[in-house]
Amino acid sequence: MNYEDFFAAELHGLHREGRYRVFTDLERHNGRFPHATHHTPTGTRPVTVWCSNDYLGMGQHPAVLAAMHGALDRCGAGAGGTRNISGTNHYHVLLERELADLHGKEAALLFTSGYVSNWAALGTLAGKLPNCAVFSDSENHASMIEGIKASRAERHIFRHNDPEDLDRKLRLVDPARPKLVAFESVYSMDGDIAPIAEICDVAEAHGALTYLDEVHAVGLYGARGGGISEREGLAHRLDVIEGTLGKAFAVHGGYITASVKLCDFVRSFASGFIFTTSLPPAVAAGAAASIRHLKASGSERARHQERVATVRARLDAAGIPCLPNDSHIVPVMVCDPVLCKAISDTLLDEFGIYVQPINYPTVPRGTERLRITPSPLHSDADIDHLVGALSTIWGRMGVERVAAE
Amino acid sequence: MNYEDFFAAELHGLHREGRYRVFTDLERHNGRFPHATHHTPTGTRPVTVWCSNDYLGMGQHPAVLAAMHGALDRCGAGAGGTRNISGTNHYHVLLERELADLHGKEAALLFTSGYVSNWAALGTLAGKLPNCAVFSDSENHASMIEGIKASRAERHIFRHNDPEDLDRKLRLVDPARPKLVAFESVYSMDGDIAPIAEICDVAEAHGALTYLDEVHAVGLYGARGGGISEREGLAHRLDVIEGTLGKAFAVHGGYITASVKLCDFVRSFASGFIFTTSLPPAVAAGAAASIRHLKASGSERARHQERVATVRARLDAAGIPCLPNDSHIVPVMVCDPVLCKAISDTLLDEFGIYVQPINYPTVPRGTERLRITPSPLHSDADIDHLVGALSTIWGRMGVERVAAE
Repeated sequence: MNYEDFFAAELHGLHREGRYRVFTDLERHNGRFPHATHHTPTGTRPVTVWCSNDYLGMGQHPAVLAAMHGALDRCGAGAGGTRNISGTNHYHVLLERELADLHGKEAALLFTSGYVSNWAALGTLAGKLPNCAVFSDSENHASMIEGIKASRAERHIFRHNDPEDLDRKLRLVDPARPKLVAFESVYSMDGDIAPIAEICDVAEAHGALTYLDEVHAVGLYGARGGGISEREGLAHRLDVIEGTLGKAFAVHGGYITASVKLCDFVRSFASGFIFTTSLPPAVAAGAAASIRHLKASGSERARHQERVATVRARLDAAGIPCLPNDSHIVPVMVCDPVLCKAISDTLLDEFGIYVQPINYPTVPRGTERLRITPSPLHSDADIDHLVGALSTIWGRMGVERVAAE
Repeated sequence: MNYEDFFAAELHGLHREGRYRVFTDLERHNGRFPHATHHTPTGTRPVTVWCSNDYLGMGQHPAVLAAMHGALDRCGAGAGGTRNISGTNHYHVLLERELADLHGKEAALLFTSGYVSNWAALGTLAGKLPNCAVFSDSENHASMIEGIKASRAERHIFRHNDPEDLDRKLRLVDPARPKLVAFESVYSMDGDIAPIAEICDVAEAHGALTYLDEVHAVGLYGARGGGISEREGLAHRLDVIEGTLGKAFAVHGGYITASVKLCDFVRSFASGFIFTTSLPPAVAAGAAASIRHLKASGSERARHQERVATVRARLDAAGIPCLPNDSHIVPVMVCDPVLCKAISDTLLDEFGIYVQPINYPTVPRGTERLRITPSPLHSDADIDHLVGALSTIWGRMGVERVAAE
């Protein structure tokens, strides 16, 4: 077996399919988001970032940075151990309290990432509940899918955002068995929002635990940033609310919130929680500051929604085709992988606009897109520049426009 | 199904077996390591930490903290995206270069933790190499075991640190099949060191890839901190060297180093690499500063080895039983879970010394221990205090001593 040849052949396959990923080497500028410097082999140039998941620009918020500087000065760089072996820092404890309060739950449990929180929590719950059956939305994130796979539990995929299909699938399983319904609030790539109340109704009728991933909603929705479940007054109906500290909260890490017993159970049995170094104290401090700020301040959320609406209206007026949804994610549909990459390259090279093309397998083939994420920090001039550039490219490349409504 | 009752019963089982974990809520003090404040429900008190994996105290090194402060000021808090979607920061690129150089490899790939690096890299390599057979040391870390399980590849467990048993197991598998030998250099709980050259000889004879976890060795061994593989001049014989940024380097994150193609392959196919927010720029900057410092400076390593030898000699003289090994990990063997916990509690409550008891399932039943990790920052007075306290407790609790050699 020639391993290098094997790797080369697999990579060649990605190139051939147009799926090979090239990272965009960026240097974001604190105080000047969404502007950044793009490092290339031939030099550096300024770009405007239009695809960050730092949705509110909290990554440059003075309260967040002050908390991080303060924790570095006070406690040093890393945690120095796992949560159980010298790595529980007081900042972790305070952050878990902040998170439990955010979602109105008894307890919270921190993980090193949102990915790990889904993988470890779902893997542990579905794996340890005896003979558990998992019901998973067909569009669930890779981290949830991996967690459910790791559990070895019986898995049923229900149609995306379809409570009736969930109900049909639940009916087929012995009522006495433990069941777990796993879904998201805002789906990352289409930006559509789950019918949480209806899914909870169905789950409740069948005695299933409910597990909601709110990673693309926490900080962004609800009076205190508790996500869609807060906005709809449904947080109490979810057994587990999972979230991230790395998107709207703009730092790093993931978490679940739930009952004391459920969190303690995952804490006690999840390999991916137990056997890993805990987050740096400064990361925990920054995340807590971000959450605290967004609990009290709605101005970032209001400005965010206004910017999203403005970008959408301007794109609609220009005939640039966007997938409609009720969230902050603006998918400009190109529906061709080569064209999608070409548009993205032109935006970057000619206009200094960075929007990553999203191709298969992140989205289904034929639905390739530019996923635009407006933030409160994008100015009117930034929007003018984006819409003008897209319109120019659309004309030059002969891409189809849609009629303005 | 009453889920809360199930969780309660499982937790009760842990309590009954003496395996329920209670976290020690610490506040480490930058500039005064290994001293910390222990937060308890009834107040705070000073403690000396003797079980941190910040082995060299680099978590308070001025160069590390300056790099982190600088990156926060320059680039803000979080990365804002996955590596592929706006989350590749220039600090990540620089850190990967630093890591490749550290191990003399062509390339490196960053992960959000050492756990994730093992899980994702082993899961991807063993899962995608067609019909791969994995040969895993019986004492491998949970993260390696989970990665191998996730791959669904055929798994052979070879006897701990036993190249002959590995050879026997390899002989049973078709020579044409891809094979992967996964092991560690320094094993965390016993502190013993793998016969890397012999294992490489066997693996090479059978055409197997070699994957070495150096998490408890990077920064600590080798002229530039490249681990045991550097110290023994064997780095070139390992296909993959995996390490952590969260122990001796004292920040956070994990990595692999390998050929350009192997890294690119894992980068392109590992779900746990692709679909997760990348590390904060400040974390990458701090880790790079720590690695750079330890490449140039051997004084921390020398002082570390001297402190370890001193602690061992003093414990031996006091008849406190330590597991012999050639590393920096000093396991004081208690061999009873209840006694081990009682000694740890007494050290903390009465003497202000924090050493976490290590019980099943982290170590086998009957090998319960206090895992002591001396650092360059532990003073002679700290050592006097530790050995005095252990000696007092040994006498008072009637624990068996060993004869001084």
